[in-house]
Amino acid sequence: MAEVEKKGVSDQEAKTVPPEHTKSSSSFFSVADVVLRFFLFVSSLVAVLVMITSKQTTTILVTVPPFTTPFPVVSTAKYRYSPAFIYFITALSVTGLYSIITTTMRFLALLKHKMPTTLLLLLIIMDVLVLGIVSAATGAAGAIGYLGLKGNSHTNWMKICYGFDKFCKHIGTSVSFSLFASVILVLLVLLNTYALSKKILK
Amino acid sequence: MAEVEKKGVSDQEAKTVPPEHTKSSSSFFSVADVVLRFFLFVSSLVAVLVMITSKQTTTILVTVPPFTTPFPVVSTAKYRYSPAFIYFITALSVTGLYSIITTTMRFLALLKHKMPTTLLLLLIIMDVLVLGIVSAATGAAGAIGYLGLKGNSHTNWMKICYGFDKFCKHIGTSVSFSLFASVILVLLVLLNTYALSKKILK
Repeated sequence: MAEVEKKGVSDQEAKTVPPEHTKSSSSFFSVADVVLRFFLFVSSLVAVLVMITSKQTTTILVTVPPFTTPFPVVSTAKYRYSPAFIYFITALSVTGLYSIITTTMRFLALLKHKMPTTLLLLLIIMDVLVLGIVSAATGAAGAIGYLGLKGNSHTNWMKICYGFDKFCKHIGTSVSFSLFASVILVLLVLLNTYALSKKILK
Repeated sequence: MAEVEKKGVSDQEAKTVPPEHTKSSSSFFSVADVVLRFFLFVSSLVAVLVMITSKQTTTILVTVPPFTTPFPVVSTAKYRYSPAFIYFITALSVTGLYSIITTTMRFLALLKHKMPTTLLLLLIIMDVLVLGIVSAATGAAGAIGYLGLKGNSHTNWMKICYGFDKFCKHIGTSVSFSLFASVILVLLVLLNTYALSKKILK
């Protein structure tokens, strides 16, 4: 009965009541979720676009030991040359697609003022899986990007960023956006788990 | 009243009642959680130990262009030579320590037959954060390990596993255990979120 009465209460009045016991609390979670998912979409889209546009062709000077004079070589850096970056693009594209679907789902649920527990549970499960995929992609692309920047003298893997500055800046920016997407996914899981627990605690 | 009566019911009888309405259901979640956390501890410990013991000293034949005859060079491969592997060791050590603390917490909660919702919520939040850390470590170490195995002809990063077979086997095993730890963390989050939702659905 109390819930039925609350439905009649206007938005202004509802906000004055402590949030965890009202519908406005549930709306807050839904709005925050939709906003976070929108940012997740934007960040994964930016990460993919920045990575895809990273191609750089440059002329580098190469010294081959028998000769002392360096000679110019036209060389191209592409994300496709590294399996880690290919995995990164795949993972972030999946995340972008996933975020479109879930933002729509959540937005529709917000309009209908209805959020079934099973849907919330499913969202948490999917968010956790996507978090694992995005974190691994961030780690992989970050490790290869760092290697390109600093090189590794022990294994004789040379740094490549002195020649491919634009390429490396794109990789760095893309990995940053992917890290941001991971943080958003953590926040989404926390938000929805908290929303799930609120239903018990109230 | 119904709950008080159920407490008096013997274990055998309790198991015949549908699990979501009984204490045995809660016990099942707790036991499964403790077992999974124990496996998390074992897998992160094995991952760290296998990575630490990966050091290999070998003699490799190097050809320096002015000379045609290759000459032997004593070379050592260590996990310390790569920042990705150092991060991996740090992340998995933290996970190992975290799993000891949470296994103890969960085991004590199981003995006391008491699992507060706030503790469950805290565990989910922490598990998600640790999952992010372990996934990123798996991705980073996996990317560098794969590079060591396959090399990258475009950037002239040579494969190193032909000389350091033991080192590479250790890295591969370690990354596999880390991946296993990530899967356990996903399962833990799913289990506890489900346990949290069961409290609503019953």
